[in-house]
Amino acid sequence: MASGTSRGRLRVLGIDPGLTRCGVGVVDVAPDRSATLVHVGVVRSDPGAPIEERLALIAAGLRAVLDAHSPDVVAVERVFAQHNRATVMGTAQASGIALLVAGERGIAAATHTPSEVKAAITGYGNADKRQVQTMVARVLRLEELPKPADAADALALALCHAWRGAPSTTAASGPLTPAQRAWADAERVARR
Amino acid sequence: MASGTSRGRLRVLGIDPGLTRCGVGVVDVAPDRSATLVHVGVVRSDPGAPIEERLALIAAGLRAVLDAHSPDVVAVERVFAQHNRATVMGTAQASGIALLVAGERGIAAATHTPSEVKAAITGYGNADKRQVQTMVARVLRLEELPKPADAADALALALCHAWRGAPSTTAASGPLTPAQRAWADAERVARR
Repeated sequence: MASGTSRGRLRVLGIDPGLTRCGVGVVDVAPDRSATLVHVGVVRSDPGAPIEERLALIAAGLRAVLDAHSPDVVAVERVFAQHNRATVMGTAQASGIALLVAGERGIAAATHTPSEVKAAITGYGNADKRQVQTMVARVLRLEELPKPADAADALALALCHAWRGAPSTTAASGPLTPAQRAWADAERVARR
Repeated sequence: MASGTSRGRLRVLGIDPGLTRCGVGVVDVAPDRSATLVHVGVVRSDPGAPIEERLALIAAGLRAVLDAHSPDVVAVERVFAQHNRATVMGTAQASGIALLVAGERGIAAATHTPSEVKAAITGYGNADKRQVQTMVARVLRLEELPKPADAADALALALCHAWRGAPSTTAASGPLTPAQRAWADAERVARR
């Protein structure tokens, strides 16, 4: 948990990394776990462009989101080597870019696995995509399911991060501010 | 081949990507394939630091090398999903950073596989590390084998890139300058 703001809400940027489409979702989450949509979108790069230009485009697009929305923390989907080998290296490179742009601004970053995200959002680690999207829409009071899927995944990731908390970081950062204490309490409840 | 300089030599930055140690090697290669060492080193990051800070350190270190040596082209080792699963994701992320810093400066980048590098340097795709290091030292007229291994690998990668050439890029860039023509001739010879 990087820092609460004076209003006690945590602003999380979730990033679903990908070379062709990088989903980005920004949510504000209050200590009572209620959440508000701030921004959702997709950063794209042309599959026909050289890899170095694609990664530079992705970095520029993600930095624009950081500039526009100043998140407290960035949550990135964790990529595994055993998944879909044809694209996994590109996805891993994009995830590296996502973590880099956070690190360069001194913003804390965390990674979460797809099953952690599903479990946090639906209570069930093997939930299907539709269930996750439905819950994300309900939590954020959206009239429609967020689209495309990458954008919905990014919102789910951001919500997951806020709800799961990051106790080790909180513990390492010394005495808690009132907002952080409220958060820690909310996290304890969430973990019961 | 990004661009020859007025002197006709090509300056290549080779990067052996890694989270803990990123080998970097800069060589000048003349149209007759003779090569000169410009810089060799390692960009390190602390294994205990958060991943986003490690990637930011690596990016900063690689940008410092670009600033100091202004390579014409960057060559990065290609990472495969099936290699050593415990570290492959970190290596892939570091390779993404290496390609990114090139792309952000408008410097062309290319990736080469380890066996392409071995074949280019020793004539044998299954050569062992010692053979590659010995050849790199001989080609660059070094009195000792370059160390650590990551640095030697980066030099081998840079030499491989210059010697293999990149005919598709050359072909796409329109009429050749005299230096580029000399290069294209040298490449044709090298491929016989």
